[in-house]
Amino acid sequence: MKSLEQMREDLVSINISILDLLCQRARVALDVQQLKKKEGIPLFVPEREQKMLSELVSRNRGPFPDETIRHLFKEIFRASVSLMEKRTENAMCVSRSFRSQDLVIQIGDKQIGKDPIVIAGPCSVESAEQMDQIGGDLSRLGINFLRGGTFKPRSSPYAFQGMGEPGLKILKDTARRYGMISVTEVMDTRAVELVSEYADVLQIGTRNMYNYSLLREVGRSQKPVLLKRGFAATIEEFLWAAEYIVSEGNQNVILCERGIRTFERQTRNTLDISAIPLIRQMSFLPIIVDVSHAAGRKDILAPLGRAALAAGANGLMVEVHPFPPVARSDSQQQLDVGEFSKFLVDVGLDPRPVEEVAGLLTAQTHATRSPTQGASS
Amino acid sequence: MKSLEQMREDLVSINISILDLLCQRARVALDVQQLKKKEGIPLFVPEREQKMLSELVSRNRGPFPDETIRHLFKEIFRASVSLMEKRTENAMCVSRSFRSQDLVIQIGDKQIGKDPIVIAGPCSVESAEQMDQIGGDLSRLGINFLRGGTFKPRSSPYAFQGMGEPGLKILKDTARRYGMISVTEVMDTRAVELVSEYADVLQIGTRNMYNYSLLREVGRSQKPVLLKRGFAATIEEFLWAAEYIVSEGNQNVILCERGIRTFERQTRNTLDISAIPLIRQMSFLPIIVDVSHAAGRKDILAPLGRAALAAGANGLMVEVHPFPPVARSDSQQQLDVGEFSKFLVDVGLDPRPVEEVAGLLTAQTHATRSPTQGASS
Amino acid sequence: MKSLEQMREDLVSINISILDLLCQRARVALDVQQLKKKEGIPLFVPEREQKMLSELVSRNRGPFPDETIRHLFKEIFRASVSLMEKRTENAMCVSRSFRSQDLVIQIGDKQIGKDPIVIAGPCSVESAEQMDQIGGDLSRLGINFLRGGTFKPRSSPYAFQGMGEPGLKILKDTARRYGMISVTEVMDTRAVELVSEYADVLQIGTRNMYNYSLLREVGRSQKPVLLKRGFAATIEEFLWAAEYIVSEGNQNVILCERGIRTFERQTRNTLDISAIPLIRQMSFLPIIVDVSHAAGRKDILAPLGRAALAAGANGLMVEVHPFPPVARSDSQQQLDVGEFSKFLVDVGLDPRPVEEVAGLLTAQTHATRSPTQGASS
Amino acid sequence: MKSLEQMREDLVSINISILDLLCQRARVALDVQQLKKKEGIPLFVPEREQKMLSELVSRNRGPFPDETIRHLFKEIFRASVSLMEKRTENAMCVSRSFRSQDLVIQIGDKQIGKDPIVIAGPCSVESAEQMDQIGGDLSRLGINFLRGGTFKPRSSPYAFQGMGEPGLKILKDTARRYGMISVTEVMDTRAVELVSEYADVLQIGTRNMYNYSLLREVGRSQKPVLLKRGFAATIEEFLWAAEYIVSEGNQNVILCERGIRTFERQTRNTLDISAIPLIRQMSFLPIIVDVSHAAGRKDILAPLGRAALAAGANGLMVEVHPFPPVARSDSQQQLDVGEFSKFLVDVGLDPRPVEEVAGLLTAQTHATRSPTQGASS
Repeated sequence: MKSLEQMREDLVSINISILDLLCQRARVALDVQQLKKKEGIPLFVPEREQKMLSELVSRNRGPFPDETIRHLFKEIFRASVSLMEKRTENAMCVSRSFRSQDLVIQIGDKQIGKDPIVIAGPCSVESAEQMDQIGGDLSRLGINFLRGGTFKPRSSPYAFQGMGEPGLKILKDTARRYGMISVTEVMDTRAVELVSEYADVLQIGTRNMYNYSLLREVGRSQKPVLLKRGFAATIEEFLWAAEYIVSEGNQNVILCERGIRTFERQTRNTLDISAIPLIRQMSFLPIIVDVSHAAGRKDILAPLGRAALAAGANGLMVEVHPFPPVARSDSQQQLDVGEFSKFLVDVGLDPRPVEEVAGLLTAQTHATRSPTQGASS
Repeated sequence: MKSLEQMREDLVSINISILDLLCQRARVALDVQQLKKKEGIPLFVPEREQKMLSELVSRNRGPFPDETIRHLFKEIFRASVSLMEKRTENAMCVSRSFRSQDLVIQIGDKQIGKDPIVIAGPCSVESAEQMDQIGGDLSRLGINFLRGGTFKPRSSPYAFQGMGEPGLKILKDTARRYGMISVTEVMDTRAVELVSEYADVLQIGTRNMYNYSLLREVGRSQKPVLLKRGFAATIEEFLWAAEYIVSEGNQNVILCERGIRTFERQTRNTLDISAIPLIRQMSFLPIIVDVSHAAGRKDILAPLGRAALAAGANGLMVEVHPFPPVARSDSQQQLDVGEFSKFLVDVGLDPRPVEEVAGLLTAQTHATRSPTQGASS
Repeated sequence: MKSLEQMREDLVSINISILDLLCQRARVALDVQQLKKKEGIPLFVPEREQKMLSELVSRNRGPFPDETIRHLFKEIFRASVSLMEKRTENAMCVSRSFRSQDLVIQIGDKQIGKDPIVIAGPCSVESAEQMDQIGGDLSRLGINFLRGGTFKPRSSPYAFQGMGEPGLKILKDTARRYGMISVTEVMDTRAVELVSEYADVLQIGTRNMYNYSLLREVGRSQKPVLLKRGFAATIEEFLWAAEYIVSEGNQNVILCERGIRTFERQTRNTLDISAIPLIRQMSFLPIIVDVSHAAGRKDILAPLGRAALAAGANGLMVEVHPFPPVARSDSQQQLDVGEFSKFLVDVGLDPRPVEEVAGLLTAQTHATRSPTQGASS
Repeated sequence: MKSLEQMREDLVSINISILDLLCQRARVALDVQQLKKKEGIPLFVPEREQKMLSELVSRNRGPFPDETIRHLFKEIFRASVSLMEKRTENAMCVSRSFRSQDLVIQIGDKQIGKDPIVIAGPCSVESAEQMDQIGGDLSRLGINFLRGGTFKPRSSPYAFQGMGEPGLKILKDTARRYGMISVTEVMDTRAVELVSEYADVLQIGTRNMYNYSLLREVGRSQKPVLLKRGFAATIEEFLWAAEYIVSEGNQNVILCERGIRTFERQTRNTLDISAIPLIRQMSFLPIIVDVSHAAGRKDILAPLGRAALAAGANGLMVEVHPFPPVARSDSQQQLDVGEFSKFLVDVGLDPRPVEEVAGLLTAQTHATRSPTQGASS
């Protein structure tokens, strides 16, 4: 028997021979691909791979079991295929390898992807008065992005489904009045055109992240898209959903982490904080965090907001309502404007003392917080 | 101090007084509701509930803490509200309380909801030859329901997205030729009309279970709908999704459990077997199990199929392809017809010996299983 | 440029050369290992692998990127390592590759691993009367395995923790009186000896599946072990936990699937039905299903039991209590004996009509189900 | 029919009557309890509750269905029970209601629960040289807490299980030499005494969070306990596990969030960032975050660390190894000291420039990062 040293040298030289053959194989495979493209022959034919594997296994004399041989060659074949894919346009357009620099999305005179932004507003648009009240207060607090749902995806078909087009009009008017950017959800391919007429940013909700027809449709629109992560979507699936939009020509996608579904019950969802640095590493798209839906409760929004910004998020999304107890949806998790002004200070986005910030709010707002007008059972 | 016996008697009589008051309260609340309906006044006004809670808490002199008082009265108010809801049409139409008898859906001369059915066919329609081959073999095995995807929801926008309308035509022709019922997915509200022209059953895929616009749209169609459970949907959300369809007038919904997303990696999804008896208890709709997607592998389909039937499922769904290694999607989990014939025997749906069943398959089928024709790299 | 045909031939011959080198490499690696063993040199030294990878990458001239080269060689190295592991005793002793035939565990004149067994009894041993009552009824129903907890793992340290040794004595006496096999949980390494004196089968609960010290300790005992799957354990981790027991010399392990923790709320856990066929395929150990803990409710136990047996389970475990409403733990999910007798018929383990089976139960049992004796508030 | 106004007045007065009765009922129940305690009668007897429910339901004349009556009275009974529980010692000792002020744990001259701490060190103690090297470097970086595993819970019984007592001795010596606090895991009730002789802080690993015997045992020790959250434990279960320790007299518990098991694959676990503010709100115990195990990869540790501190964590735990590629466990996720010094700067715990901090590291350390010494295959 050889000495240990000799055997080690053997291993090294075998390794190098394998390396040479692998590279040689890759070059031939690239040539094949080039020829096929020129002649219009299908690039990948699984039967052929199967046949090659069968031949190799039939030649195997050990000591590896057949399944190991099959596994190793599948890895080798896959490496060749992904080499070809990288050479074609198949690589994800939303990945850092496609564009290394952060994308900054310009909407009017506002920017997303630079300084942290805050998108705030009620879960649902409910009336012109409600929106005027909240829009006024938010703009006085320096908020530039106004959200409000007009088409609401609700678990029950009998729950409030949103005001529809009249709500869109109210949202647009309010945003214009206060110089804000409006953000609202679109749920139906057929409604993309309508919603685009009114809204500045089209939101795709968590339930529609896998609605590929809708993703393509907003990809064909000119409006920036706020894409929420599906509550059971992997990060990879999330980026592929963005790719659906970008592949249609619309690169202005803002990603939004909003919590995933787990076994924990204290929060409505589990905020996947790791998704922020991972996505910033994998993609050039801006990513914000919807703290309201992640928590599903109001008492931990400020620490979650601080954590999101510390992890690298490009902004926050918060549900704020003039008087949350009467909200027609999500009444548990919406802040009132007083709470929201404190939130801004707590997360460090407003450097002034809480009292000063709260002082900006209107008298009406305070009034609504202790309702005395008659109400029915 | 009173004796234990005396104090117990006190508790009993207090209980009874509370009971009387609760019932009295409910009767008044129903009267209020009736009057409001007549006069067109909004039924539920949250501010009023808030106000009543505040008053009650202000009168609390202990020993319960205020939060307990608030909690108990919220429960009492909720009970009144749900009493009213039950009196209106708000109860789930898909629940057993609405219809106690199992729904049997009639399609041509086939029935779903009585004897177990099997829906089989390839993941994707790929060509007329492929469909003719599989359709012929499946019908010889006694299968009445032919599935085949023509619009495919894929994670990547660059993956094969299905043949579209030409595929629908192939599916319809094949089904007619072999006297089968065709089942195919629809992904876009705008495509419901088109797909309805060709298919006998409209499938809503797992990714679109929360696509409420689509659910409403198929609810307005005349075709039976196969609704797959979202892979992260609770059973309650699943039934609400069915409710969306039924609320538009289409009661012919076939539910399909297909596994949920968990931490386990051995299977692509975790088949939630408990969902079968629970749903059969909660709803009158038929429920089948898609074993192929639940497992994501071929080697445990028969035991899963047996378990599903034993748990009360009204049928099974299986992906079967003439030659799985060349399938354009889901190639890992599709059975070939030989394996499928064995599956039928193993789950007890074909009482004949395996050899006899396998003997029904065509020569062409066998030929394709050891391909010798040329193929490219 | 060469023709397509020529290039394909090149690919085939390169494949074969790679194959030859891989096999040659594996043989040298095995020789190295043999020599090292003889000379007592550590078998695996990660630095060396790192160094070899660095050398190979430094020689890479494309077209593969460096990371692909690193990936392919890691796969090749891992194949060699797992080849060595298979040659040594490192392969899992609980796997089918170690023993192809199903293990049948003999306890007295009873067998586990052949005909389906049923383990039944209360969550907790509470008194001699309770155990006598339940033991008598269960044995009249033909049940051979009596469970009863005496050391209870409870979320709160203030909840009932079990009777301890007096409970063990009661359990043993009851089992002897009715000719049954006793099963009870052990939670502490220091208690294994004590519990072994009384119980016929040692149970490791779901919370202790990762308690490796305890697993080793029961592995050193002579008693069969019932090992429950951790509620968040993968199937692989579950088998490794069994391996801990077997590696200490005790091969008599009965696996028990009891549901995993997911987002679904209708059931306490989600019964992972796929685990049954997978584990039966991977291991020779018997596996049973605890339907009570999987469901956490009583109304779907029979369909779950049928599904478990249909999927290949070697038996069922059910919580049965003389009068569940007064049970000191798990009162929601325990059956009374009347319900249990119906369960046995429903799952097909008792072929007699329900009335005949129920008629075997004692008068006392019936009495307890409509208690009239005084009770305190 | 009465007017709406009149009916509303009726509702108000009925509400107040119910309130009076509820309070009256609670006072009687408290009296009953006091009497029972004096006379040694069991406090809670479920049969009696059942009987009272049956009586109430039998008196129900509508309009509420029986199940609503049962539900409402169960809530009322539960309110009484929890009122009693609050009066006894049953409330969680680890909750804020028990102690409002943050707990600061003093170990030697170091404090946990005030300024953020960092616990660092290798996954496993491997040799005196390794520990001296890492201990020296860490102390030069200002780290006060040195971790190192000597009893390792591994999935496979054949994987490296830790050095045991010799490792404990090395850990202790190293910590003393550099004036650090040592932290190490204990897995077995029988080893608590031994480990306590050497270590300053006893760690309970994620796999043993439900090992209640072990929790009690460390609760009887005088050493502070670092309790890791089970990877599938709810926050409530986590706090109950701490309660097990505290209930034995040891209040010095440091909680440690380390990620939970979800469907996401990019990270080994999903860091549950919301757990930090929730636990700080619910309990006075300090809570730190183990970023290494949460991520299972090295490239996102700094943003996770920043997020944890921003969310209110009292410190961080990080795996650091002199030369990670040769680590005997967790080699993928351990930082080397150079990376760790950068981490400290990135999370804001070292205000100096990276270069200055890195300059503190020993020459040996740098040497090990480009190993040239011989190694075996």
